[in-house]
Amino acid sequence: MTSERAPFRVGLLGHGTVGAAFETLIDERADAIAAEVGLRPELSGVLTRSRGDFDDILERSDLIVELMGGIEPACDYALRALRTGRHFVTANKQLVSQRGEELFAAAGEARVQLRFEAAVAGVVPAIRVISEALAAAHIERVHGIVNGTTNFILTAMDRSGVSYEDALTEAQELGYAEADPTEDVTGKDAAAKMAILARLAFATPVHVDDVPHEGIESVTADDIAYARELGLSLKLIGSAERIDGGLSVEVYPAFLYAGHPLAAVNGSFNAVTIESPAITEITLSGPGAGGSQTASAVLGDVVSAMIPPPFNLPPAQPLPLVKDRESSFYLHVEVADRPGVLAQVAEIIGLQGASIESVVQKGLGEEARLAMVIHPVLESSFRAGVAMIERLDFVRSKPRVIRVVSEVFE
Amino acid sequence: MTSERAPFRVGLLGHGTVGAAFETLIDERADAIAAEVGLRPELSGVLTRSRGDFDDILERSDLIVELMGGIEPACDYALRALRTGRHFVTANKQLVSQRGEELFAAAGEARVQLRFEAAVAGVVPAIRVISEALAAAHIERVHGIVNGTTNFILTAMDRSGVSYEDALTEAQELGYAEADPTEDVTGKDAAAKMAILARLAFATPVHVDDVPHEGIESVTADDIAYARELGLSLKLIGSAERIDGGLSVEVYPAFLYAGHPLAAVNGSFNAVTIESPAITEITLSGPGAGGSQTASAVLGDVVSAMIPPPFNLPPAQPLPLVKDRESSFYLHVEVADRPGVLAQVAEIIGLQGASIESVVQKGLGEEARLAMVIHPVLESSFRAGVAMIERLDFVRSKPRVIRVVSEVFE
Repeated sequence: MTSERAPFRVGLLGHGTVGAAFETLIDERADAIAAEVGLRPELSGVLTRSRGDFDDILERSDLIVELMGGIEPACDYALRALRTGRHFVTANKQLVSQRGEELFAAAGEARVQLRFEAAVAGVVPAIRVISEALAAAHIERVHGIVNGTTNFILTAMDRSGVSYEDALTEAQELGYAEADPTEDVTGKDAAAKMAILARLAFATPVHVDDVPHEGIESVTADDIAYARELGLSLKLIGSAERIDGGLSVEVYPAFLYAGHPLAAVNGSFNAVTIESPAITEITLSGPGAGGSQTASAVLGDVVSAMIPPPFNLPPAQPLPLVKDRESSFYLHVEVADRPGVLAQVAEIIGLQGASIESVVQKGLGEEARLAMVIHPVLESSFRAGVAMIERLDFVRSKPRVIRVVSEVFE
Repeated sequence: MTSERAPFRVGLLGHGTVGAAFETLIDERADAIAAEVGLRPELSGVLTRSRGDFDDILERSDLIVELMGGIEPACDYALRALRTGRHFVTANKQLVSQRGEELFAAAGEARVQLRFEAAVAGVVPAIRVISEALAAAHIERVHGIVNGTTNFILTAMDRSGVSYEDALTEAQELGYAEADPTEDVTGKDAAAKMAILARLAFATPVHVDDVPHEGIESVTADDIAYARELGLSLKLIGSAERIDGGLSVEVYPAFLYAGHPLAAVNGSFNAVTIESPAITEITLSGPGAGGSQTASAVLGDVVSAMIPPPFNLPPAQPLPLVKDRESSFYLHVEVADRPGVLAQVAEIIGLQGASIESVVQKGLGEEARLAMVIHPVLESSFRAGVAMIERLDFVRSKPRVIRVVSEVFE
């Protein structure tokens, strides 16, 4: 129907941190998307406070991305885009939580797509999973850590025992909290996001003003310390759940037991747990904010709007399969405890271009053991070193090797 | 185009645990799906070893669900369904990892949908998120805990220090491992799943035979104990990652540092972490298997195939908003340490219909503090009790209250 490279025209409203990141990302990924979808996304115009004209951009666009924030003129632009048959993608939680019903109706009438994954929990695909993967599920409860600023502050308080005020100052210095942190620390930001999640999970219109919210300003270091003794960790929780045939949507600081899937979500990360009898629970976690992360969620929505249904796999573009690669390793060696044993093992490891990151030595005499973690090294080199270690006369049994996984992006 | 209740005919191949759960679930959810999608899913026929005829079922179906397992006749049925214009949904990892390219080609030619969320990581929507939410992302690495049996065994070894053999026996007794656990414990099952994830994340055809896999049979309780001293926990990891312009896909036991998002995934749960420069990382976790969980993932795929694009929100079906509800609470009271203080506090809590789950008492004399967790109680009753406690003469400051979250499904 269209050539492999037919353009798909994207108009961009707003050019702050996320808008600029989106412009960079769409350029970077345009060829890959074209290969996958058969259409090439291109920016058809950018509206900022000082340049561009909305009507002109609308005229030249198949889809509008709104990253301005605030209610007006964003809502007016959204309705005009939808009513003239443009798909609309936004990261604007105020807009969706306050004017969602109008927008949903306009999109439904025009039979175009309205997508807003980036409005809740950044790149965490909570909206897609609730709306699509769980479209058939009877959802009982949604719990979210949907504000990265407060989670960063609570994590800092928990880890270093500092006061709320000191943790907030640290968050501001590192760029995780704004100069005026009111929206975040009072729970209002989280309330808007929970209103959106509740609308999707329970098909019930929830206005942000209907969501009671309590923040973290009065949490003390003491509360956190006592709670730890009780086996609890403190999070700002957004909850939406069925109760007695009704729906409760709230935001409040809450303690979680160590086994709760949200208990381990730390720093500025966001996460959402969805509970349903048939599925038990699904938890999704990832960075809650950040320019490129949010831009990525927006671009995911743009691609979904572009994909001509039925969705199917793009053709294969094979990569060669790699067999030998760098990794960090755990090495366990049973040795006779003589002078120089560790030095000899370390020397062999060093000859293979590797080095020891940490080591535990246990036992005495003929029963000694070395357990160590080796910095990343090519697997074939490491295995060659281990074969040499195995032949040392003080080694009492076959050394044991297990890989250690590190993270790509620190 | 179609009436609100037009039927969408689903033919079911296979009627074991998952098939039976799917039949129950589709019945339970048919009305809700019809309200959402405008089509009502109905079973048009069931093929088992002893009843039903494939051609007859095919004739009467818009979509075929395959839950038979194995390669043949499943592959033959899949190709015939796709080539005659039926959508095809399967939970069969062998089929997709061994014959995927044929199936993808057939689906693409017929312009119908081929979906297989349940083939990898049960109800965890890894396939949807990689294929759709991250369609625009340059994925660098996918790590998965994609076999629940081995994760159950490793968790048991870590928690109670038992041997591999004892943990396997426990898993078999509890139904988490089969009588012949070979496919699971050797990593072969995980290899098939990683082949599928790698195909989607990197657009590279990966046959299960191309995936080197190492299992957990030789892991010792000792390894786990030493590793814990080094701050590591052991998981059977499937990894697929770009290396030097190529792709490495493998399954092996690996140690993770405590901060790794997969380190906290315990028991029979599965999880997948997807890393990309723009998004940092997304982690998805949930039950890896189970009849109703797998059936839920299958039904999610069926609904996605049913939804007439463009996907839009269903009309609202409002639930009443609940304001007062039961919750567990943390209560912190500063008291003068006199005889009977805890008893009086406990009595007031008891009068409100609540009881104390655990308590920590700290300090002496005028500086004493009680920190406790209260079993679930209606919030309004609990707050009334706290107001009474506040007026006790030995209470030195306003009591502090924070909710404690528990899980809906234990």
